[in-house]
Amino acid sequence: MNIIVAPDSFKDCLSAKEVASSITKGIRQIAPEATIIEIPLSDGGEGIMQTLVDVTGGTVISFSVLDPLGRTITSGFGLLEEGKTAVVELARASGLELLKEKERNPLRTSTYGTGQLIKAALDHGCQKIIVGLGGSATNDGGSGMLKALGAKFLDENGEEIRGGGGELNRLRRIDLTNLDSRIGTCEIVIASDVANPLVGPNGASLVYGAQKGGDKKDLEQLDTNLKNYGEVIKEQFNIDVLNQKGAGAAGGTGAALLAFMNGKMTNGIELVLQMVKMEHHLAKCDLLFTGEGQIDGQTLNGKTVTGVSKLAKKYKVPVMVLAGKVGQQIEGIYGMGATAVFPIVDGPMELEEALKKAPILLQRTAQNIMRAIKGSKL
Amino acid sequence: MNIIVAPDSFKDCLSAKEVASSITKGIRQIAPEATIIEIPLSDGGEGIMQTLVDVTGGTVISFSVLDPLGRTITSGFGLLEEGKTAVVELARASGLELLKEKERNPLRTSTYGTGQLIKAALDHGCQKIIVGLGGSATNDGGSGMLKALGAKFLDENGEEIRGGGGELNRLRRIDLTNLDSRIGTCEIVIASDVANPLVGPNGASLVYGAQKGGDKKDLEQLDTNLKNYGEVIKEQFNIDVLNQKGAGAAGGTGAALLAFMNGKMTNGIELVLQMVKMEHHLAKCDLLFTGEGQIDGQTLNGKTVTGVSKLAKKYKVPVMVLAGKVGQQIEGIYGMGATAVFPIVDGPMELEEALKKAPILLQRTAQNIMRAIKGSKL
Repeated sequence: MNIIVAPDSFKDCLSAKEVASSITKGIRQIAPEATIIEIPLSDGGEGIMQTLVDVTGGTVISFSVLDPLGRTITSGFGLLEEGKTAVVELARASGLELLKEKERNPLRTSTYGTGQLIKAALDHGCQKIIVGLGGSATNDGGSGMLKALGAKFLDENGEEIRGGGGELNRLRRIDLTNLDSRIGTCEIVIASDVANPLVGPNGASLVYGAQKGGDKKDLEQLDTNLKNYGEVIKEQFNIDVLNQKGAGAAGGTGAALLAFMNGKMTNGIELVLQMVKMEHHLAKCDLLFTGEGQIDGQTLNGKTVTGVSKLAKKYKVPVMVLAGKVGQQIEGIYGMGATAVFPIVDGPMELEEALKKAPILLQRTAQNIMRAIKGSKL
Repeated sequence: MNIIVAPDSFKDCLSAKEVASSITKGIRQIAPEATIIEIPLSDGGEGIMQTLVDVTGGTVISFSVLDPLGRTITSGFGLLEEGKTAVVELARASGLELLKEKERNPLRTSTYGTGQLIKAALDHGCQKIIVGLGGSATNDGGSGMLKALGAKFLDENGEEIRGGGGELNRLRRIDLTNLDSRIGTCEIVIASDVANPLVGPNGASLVYGAQKGGDKKDLEQLDTNLKNYGEVIKEQFNIDVLNQKGAGAAGGTGAALLAFMNGKMTNGIELVLQMVKMEHHLAKCDLLFTGEGQIDGQTLNGKTVTGVSKLAKKYKVPVMVLAGKVGQQIEGIYGMGATAVFPIVDGPMELEEALKKAPILLQRTAQNIMRAIKGSKL
C-alpha cells in the first residue's frame, strides 16, 4: 500500500512538515506495512521557499535585506536545481509577519527587500526565479522591488519620490536606465493565488489594504495612487497593467513583475505540485492525505487542498482531507477530487486548546480514517 | 448494501431516534441505494421503555404515580409482546430528572412511584416485568417500591418508619404479610449497567449519593442506613444482599429486587439487543453505525456502543462509532468490535453550539465516513 501525505501548514499552529509527520504517525499505527511518502506543501504564500528547498534538496542562502520599514533583517532565498533556479518568498522580506501590529502602515511599507532578494539570486547566476507572493505588508505596486533592481520613480520635477504606496500619486515617470539588465534573460515565475486587479473595488488597496493597517481614508488614497501608477506605466510603456488579472497581488507587486520583469503568473499550488513531481508519485499511489487549518467555501479556490485533490483525481487516487475547522459551503470540494473531509477536534473546545492538541488530534483522525477504510468490507 | 443505524441517545441533546435519523440522512446522501434499518438503542437507564416500545411495536400505558418527593405526576410503563411483558423505567417515576436541582435530597426521596408502576403492570396481567434501573434520585434501598407493593418497614416499636433513605437506620423488621403475591409468579428482569455493592466505599451512597444531592455527612449517614437495611434483611430472611453485585444499583433498589422479587440481574444493553433481535439483523448486515454523546475510558463498560460493537464483532460487521465528545483511554474499544470512532464537531466550538448543531454534525460525519469508505479502493 502506497500512501502520500501532502498537507499544507496549519496557520499559527503547525508547519506543513509537522502536520505531515502527525498524520503519518496515525497511519502507521493502523497500517505499519504501508509505504508512506511525506510531501509537505504550500500554495505559494508563506512557506513556499522552505517547501521547495525541502522537496528538491535545495539550500537556503541567507543574508541581510531591508524589511518593509527599511530596517535591516536577516532573510534569504532558496537555491534549487544545482543553482539554476531560485525561490524568493516576498513575505520573508516584505511580509506582514515581520511587523508588529502597530507598525503596519501601507502608505510607508516597501517591497525594497524583495528586490534585494531577487538581485542576490541574479548575482548567484540563477536563470529562473520563482517569486512567491502572498502575506505582503505593502501596497507600493512593487515599486520598492524595482528600485532595488535599479529603477527610479520620479515626480514632476524629475526627483525621486519617497518609497511606499503613499507617494505614488506624485509619480510622473519611471526611469529604467539602470534597471538590472540580467532581468531580461531570466525567467520570472510568479507563484500566487490572488487574481485581483490592481485597482478598483476588487483591487489590491480596497480588498487587502485594511489587514495591512490602512484606514478607510488611507485605502482610498492608495487606490488613487496605484491608479496613477498604472496610468504612468500605460502612457510611458504602453503596457496595460490596470486591466491585468493578478496585477493586484501583494499590494500591486504583481503589476511590477508583469510589466517590467516579464513575469509569468502561475497558480502557486500548481507550481509547487509540479516542482515536487506530484504526478510521478500519484501514479503509484493508493491513498492520499492532505489538510489545511481551515476549509470553507471562501478558501476552496487555488488552495493546497483543492490543487492536490484535482491532480489526485486525474490518477483516481482517493483523497482524505483533514482540517482544524470545516466551514460552510464546502460541497464543491468533492467534485474537485476530495473524497472526504474530516475535522480533527474530538469534542467541544476552545480554539486555543485545539491549537495545542493539534498534533495528537491529527494523528488520531488519520488513525480513525485508516481504521474505517481498512476495517470496512464494502 | 445493508446498513444498521443503532445509536444511543445523545444526553441533554437528542433522543436515540433523532440521532439515528440524522445519521441515516448522511448515509443516504452518499449511498442512496443502501437498505438502512434504524434501531435506536438504550443501555437500560433512561430511554429503555421508549426503545423497547418502539422496536417491539408495544404501547405505553399512562397513569398517575408519586414522584420521588410524593407529588402526583403522570408516568406509565410499556406493554410489550401482546401484554405479556411490561417494561418499567425507574427514572420515569423516581428519577433525578423529575426534580429541580434544589429539590434533590437522597435522605427523603423514595422509589414508591416505581412500585406503583410495577403494581400496575401486575394489574395488567403481565407475567414478565423488565425493570430499567439508572438515573434514580433515590437512596432508599428500594424500600419505597416494596412499600407500594404492600411491604411495611417497622421500627423497634413496630411502627412504620418514614420513607426515603434517611430513616433506614431505625429499621428493625420488614413485614411482608401484605406483599403483592403476584410477584412470586412474575418474572422480574433487572436491566442495569451498575455492578456496585449496596454499601461501603464502592456502594450506592458513597459513589452515587452526591449527584443525588447529598453532602458528605448525608452520604455517610446513608451508607450506615443501607448497612442496617442489609443486616435486617440478612437476619430476618437469611438473604445476603450486602455482598451481592449490583445490589447498589439505583440507590439500593437493586437489593430489594434481588432479595424480595426474585429479580434476575441482566446487563441493560444486552437485554435491549436481545429484545430488538439485533443478531437477526446483524446476520445480513454490511456496516453498522452507532454512537453516544460521550465516549471515554470510564464509559466503555456495559454501555450501548460497546454492547452493540461486541455483538457486531461476532458477525464480522464493521462498526462506525460517532460521538459528541471522544475522551481519553478509549483504545480498548477497538478490541471490543468498534472499527473506528469519529467525533462529530467540525471545529473549535462551545458545548452549547455543539448541542445545537448536533443533527447536522451527525449527518455530515456519517456522510464523510461513507465517502471515505466508498471512495477508497484499499
